[in-house]
Parts: sequence; structure tokens; C-alpha cells
Amino acid sequence: MAAIGENLKINSERLWDSLMDMARVGPGVAGGNNRQTVTDADSEGRHLFHTWAEAAGCSMGLDQMGNMFAMRAGTDPDALPVYVGSHLDTQPTGGKYDGVLGVLGGLELLRTMSDLDIKTKHPIVVTNWTNEEGTRYAPAMLSSGVFAGLHSQEWAYERTDADGKSFGDELARIGWRGDETVGARKMHAFFELHIEQGPILEAEDKQIGVVTHGQGLSWTEITILGKDAHTGSTPMPMRKNAGLAMARILDRVEDIAMSHAPHAVGAAGHVNVYPNSRNVIPGKVVFTVDFRSPELAVIQDMESRLRVEAQEICDTMGMEVSFEKVGGFDPVTFDETCVQAVRSAAVRLGYSHMDLISGAGHDACWINRVAPTAMIMCPCVDGLSHNEAEEISPEWAAAGTDVLLHAVLETAIITA
Amino acid sequence: MAAIGENLKINSERLWDSLMDMARVGPGVAGGNNRQTVTDADSEGRHLFHTWAEAAGCSMGLDQMGNMFAMRAGTDPDALPVYVGSHLDTQPTGGKYDGVLGVLGGLELLRTMSDLDIKTKHPIVVTNWTNEEGTRYAPAMLSSGVFAGLHSQEWAYERTDADGKSFGDELARIGWRGDETVGARKMHAFFELHIEQGPILEAEDKQIGVVTHGQGLSWTEITILGKDAHTGSTPMPMRKNAGLAMARILDRVEDIAMSHAPHAVGAAGHVNVYPNSRNVIPGKVVFTVDFRSPELAVIQDMESRLRVEAQEICDTMGMEVSFEKVGGFDPVTFDETCVQAVRSAAVRLGYSHMDLISGAGHDACWINRVAPTAMIMCPCVDGLSHNEAEEISPEWAAAGTDVLLHAVLETAIITA
Repeated sequence: MAAIGENLKINSERLWDSLMDMARVGPGVAGGNNRQTVTDADSEGRHLFHTWAEAAGCSMGLDQMGNMFAMRAGTDPDALPVYVGSHLDTQPTGGKYDGVLGVLGGLELLRTMSDLDIKTKHPIVVTNWTNEEGTRYAPAMLSSGVFAGLHSQEWAYERTDADGKSFGDELARIGWRGDETVGARKMHAFFELHIEQGPILEAEDKQIGVVTHGQGLSWTEITILGKDAHTGSTPMPMRKNAGLAMARILDRVEDIAMSHAPHAVGAAGHVNVYPNSRNVIPGKVVFTVDFRSPELAVIQDMESRLRVEAQEICDTMGMEVSFEKVGGFDPVTFDETCVQAVRSAAVRLGYSHMDLISGAGHDACWINRVAPTAMIMCPCVDGLSHNEAEEISPEWAAAGTDVLLHAVLETAIITA
Repeated sequence: MAAIGENLKINSERLWDSLMDMARVGPGVAGGNNRQTVTDADSEGRHLFHTWAEAAGCSMGLDQMGNMFAMRAGTDPDALPVYVGSHLDTQPTGGKYDGVLGVLGGLELLRTMSDLDIKTKHPIVVTNWTNEEGTRYAPAMLSSGVFAGLHSQEWAYERTDADGKSFGDELARIGWRGDETVGARKMHAFFELHIEQGPILEAEDKQIGVVTHGQGLSWTEITILGKDAHTGSTPMPMRKNAGLAMARILDRVEDIAMSHAPHAVGAAGHVNVYPNSRNVIPGKVVFTVDFRSPELAVIQDMESRLRVEAQEICDTMGMEVSFEKVGGFDPVTFDETCVQAVRSAAVRLGYSHMDLISGAGHDACWINRVAPTAMIMCPCVDGLSHNEAEEISPEWAAAGTDVLLHAVLETAIITA
């Protein structure tokens, strides 16, 4: 294997230009992006990535979940490819870098290899995983989940959005439902570069997060049935105010998460109140509680306490409550060899770094089940993500992609 | 003046049939109605009322707010009319009787007078007030409010719904924007028959509520600005979860109202969370708190405590909060002579009755400012209203309408 020089770096200006070009597809309302999965904007973003990948000399694979695989050939026809990548879909009010950096950072590493005529034993594949965000179609990481065998493809196709449109139909409609069997590909390794989406790296003044573990997640959708009635003429003791029951449960969610400080977190991002009229006491609420922790036992404790305490609150108030687990995954331990390749790359390049637990779910958390996997994180301003104001610096993006390049080249083995 | 016999009653079967016929216009999804103001369904309901009123020998007036006035002539050309009526618009998930009983009960009293060839000195006018509910266009009682001089017509026309459509445009579009100047009519008296929308009459086993006062109301719309961020990777102490701040305020709303038991009430029926995604901490919430009491000082106390306590909660949590008063009216004392006419009618007819404070706002609360006014209430099952399951019995409807007939005839003076 040829040595990898500490001066081997990607073209940071080209990377940044591509990030900005992609950000023009599916613009948001406040400087970020609304390029939700399997929309027309998603399709447009895919076409742009496809065009770039072909220009970089890649062949493009497309599976039945719409996962895209841009391959640069290796020198050994029998060697399994090293995969990199992330996702191009965004939140409804999402940023320009969440997911996108991992896909376009992968593209940039291929472009750099072409510039320098670097060949590897193992092919390198840049992946765009469909529907990582899970906002339009729950659960998150839907297509990497099918790839890793967590969900059946039929079940995934049947997921519906708020308008009742199915994922399978919408994927076909936008023209990105391929023929390839999902999960048929075997991987030598998988590396995902991603922004931290949290404030730790910036606060610690580190350029690189070496992700050793991923937090587990539990999503519980809670439905409370009270009784909608006139806000004026229903005496207080006779009310069944489902909104008030929800309020009391939301306060407990905070307490439950805080009881497992500092690593556990909890919140409800999704809240619907019915009939949502100023002079009708809410007769029904539906909301989803998101709990996360790097420890499985903590997640299980939070989830069960939520159910017990919410049941108590609703029993006391004379209301019906039901619970549905609508998403979840266990904490993840990434592959030691891949993690070490990331750490070595950061050391070789002289970038400040620290070990990190990923607070968010990522496609890498699922792919870790079927291939040796690691993640690289770079800081984002103020820890802000899932927000149109999400921001990173070109230097952070370049450092993360440099580390990706080095870790991948070490794993894919340079032959020339 | 001719005597009014205790055996003089309306045709309860005809009244009930008309209520059921109207309920077929703008049906709901669960047996009630969705006949929101200035929609196509509202227009259809108006046409039905118009047809019935003409068949009953009335002339129809229509003012610039779409208020409808079906007049049966009196014998004295100089006598001001006695008005009755309520509203035909409903909540999005409303019942079949809220408002409708007052309009069709008024129509039934005219039909009964024609059956029995009763003439009165004063004309009698049955009114359908536009947009009582205020759900599509806040505030409630919009058009009776313009009639009574509380709002300007221009301001009312500019109210917009959630789709940005203005009230004035929609009123014209459905074809019910008349030429008559709003508020030009002078009234000898106004009587509104309405279902209680509360549980008291049923619990006390009374057929008639003699409404002496109306609760005052205050609507405060609260906007909290937190920071939307990823639910997984933002440590708990660094969050600005606007949904949690709202939850804590909703709990205070309950406490504030309970501190003024038993007459004061408080709740938030309207709650919007942004961006409303399962894995984004709410960066913004907008919700409306509804406080009511028959005492002005209590309303003012609740409103000011809400602002102080909500400000404290948001200051502590590092969030911005703003308040807008989006609706309100002072407690109402109805006209003694009109109230006594209602009470006397109940006594004469042998119906069990009790004095009542109206918990809901009604058009009568505004008209009380410009004419001697009273209200008659009949029970509704389980106190349930603003709900498709709202129910009354034909006997309750008939008793209330009998009392309306007697109170109106006493006031309008029978001449033959």
C-alpha cells in the first residue's frame, strides 16, 4: 500500500461551490432548504448529484428504495467497495449541510482522486440514502433501514404522508424507483461524514468528532381523548381538557430526561390539538415524545416512566390515553477498525479532534448492522440544525472531508 | 292588549323538522355540522331560511354584513319591531342546535302566529347574525358587533381566514353582501333563544334558563419564540423548547381560573407548534388563552396574571414572549323588563326555570348595548356543545320556543 501524505487534501473551494449549488434546489423560506423526501425538489437534487457523479466518471446504481450508488471502480475486481455517503433530503425548514455534506463530501473525495489519479484496490461508492429525515414519512432513516433489513420494503412503500400519499407511489412518481434489490450490495466498510447537529465540538474548539457510539432513540406517539366542549359554559370541574393533560405530560418529559443528565434528552416536536378552535376545549391531542440516550437501559426506563406517568395523569383527569411506538433504535457501537481509521486520519492531518457520541440518528446507525461502519463529524455554528439558519464554515467542511478522504483511502488501499 | 293563554304553544313537530332539515346543510363528519361562516354551505343554509321566511309571509332585509332580517308586519306603522334570532353558522365540528335553534325558533313563532292569525302592534323580525362563531374569522359575534357599533365595517371586512381570504370578499363571493347600512335598524327589544352549551339546567332538572347576565370574555394570543434545533443532539440545558414553555403556561391557566372558582373558567383551544416535526425542538408556538367570568375585575385579574406568569416562565427559560388581545367583551347585564317577560312566560306556561349566567358569548351580548335585550336558554345533553355530538330533546326545544313566543307576544302587544 502506498503511503498517504499529510499534505493530501481535497479541493475545499469546489466542495463549497457544490454545497451552494445543491442549496439552490428546494430553497426554504429563510435561507435554508425545504427539499423533503420524494418531492419534485428531491428529484431535482438527485438529478444534480447524478450529473456530477457521471462527470466524475462514476457509474450510478439505483435500488427499489431510491437509494443512489455512484461507483468509482477499484483495481481488484473481487474487492468489495468502500461506501461513503449520507442523504440529500432535508427537513421542511432544514439547513444546507445536514446530510448534504456527507454526500457531496463523498463526491469531492472522488473528484480529488481523479485530479491526482489515485487508484484504490477497493471500489469507492458514494451513496444518497432516501428519506433519512422521516418528517414526511416516519420513521427516519427509512431506506437505510430497509437496506439493513430492519423494515420490509412493502411496509416502507405503504408509509403515508399527511395527505395520504404513499411513499412507494411518490418514489415512482418522481422517477427514482430503481430495479436493484435493496440490501443486495455487500460493503467492505461504510463511512458517513455529517455535521454534528449539536454544540459540543464548537464549544470544545475541535475540528473533528470521532464518533464512537450513536445514541439510541425512542419515539412514542401519545393520543389523549378528552371531550371537546364550549370554553365558556363548561364548569372547570366538569372539563376533560386534553390539551391540559398534554401540558402536564410535557412537563414530565422534561423531568424524566433531566433525571438521566447529562446524556439523555427528551422533547415533543410534533403536537396536534383538535379541533384547534379558540372557543372549544381540546377534545383530542396527538403528540410524539422523542427520548434519546447512549444507554439502552436509560431509554427503556424513560419510555416506561413516560407511559406510567402519562397514564396516571390521564386517569386522574378522567381521560383515555393510548401509546404507539412509532420509531426507535438501540444505541450503536461503531466498528473499532473504522473508528481508528478516522482517528488516525485526524492525527495525520493535524486536525484537533475528540471522541463523540452521536445524538442524532443517522443512516450509519443502520448500516453499522450489516457492515463495518464509522462516522466523522464536523462542528456547526451554535449547534443549530433542523433549522434554516444551520451554518458551518468552509474550513470545517474541508477538514471533515479531508479526514473522510484519508480514512477511506486507508481502508480502500491505494494501489497507484 | 289581548290576553295570552297558557295553552298557546308552538308546533313542536314542525320546529323539529325544520331543525333537522337545516342540519342536512353543511353536514359534519360525525353527525353534526360544518357550516362555517361565509362558506358555500353557509350560503345554502341562508337560502333555505330565506325560502321558509318568504313562505311564512315575511319580507327579507339584508345588510352589508350579511345579517338577515325576516320581518312580519305589525299593525302600528310607527312601532319599532321586536327582534328575535341568533345565528346559522357553526363551528368546524359543531352541533345542530347552537345558534340554529334561536333562528328557527323565531321562524316557528311567526308560523304559529300565522296559524292562529295573531296580529301584534309591533312588527316581529327574525334575524340571522353573520359569523357568530368566530372560528374562521375572529372575533366571535363579528356582525352583531358591527351592528352594535363595537367594530367598524371596514375592519370586519379585512379580517382574514387561515388561507388569507378576507371576510368581505368571501361574503360577496357567496352572494350575501346586502346594501342596507349596518346598525341602521332600531329595535323595540331583542330576544335570543339559545341552548345552554353547559351542564347546569340538565343537572338542576330545569326546562328554562332565564338569563340575567352574560359572562365577560378575554382572548389573549400568546407567541413564544424559542429556537428550533435537533431533538437528539442539543443538550437539555442548551435548549429553548417553546413547546415546554407553553406547557408550563397552560398549567398556570388552569390554576388562575381555579383560583376564581366557581364562576371563572380558562383554557386554550387553539395551539399551533412550529415547525411541528417529530425531531425538531419547537422553535415557536402560538396559542390563545380564553378566560371568562361574570365579573369584570376577575377577568382583568386573570388576564394580567397570565401575562405576568407567562413572562416569568419565558424569562426563566430564556425565550421571547409576546401577547395580543384578540377578543374580549365585558360582562353583560340584560334588560330587566325583557328578563321579566321571559320569567313570566315560563311561569305562565308552567315550565320549571331558574336564573342563569350565560357562560358563552352571544349576539345578544352585543345587541344588549343598543336595545333592551334578554336571552332564553334550554338544556343540552351533558352540557356538550361546539361538538358534533351536541344534542337536545324536541321537548326542550319546544319549551324554549314556547317561552320565546310568550315573551315576544307580551312585548310586541297582541292586537288581534
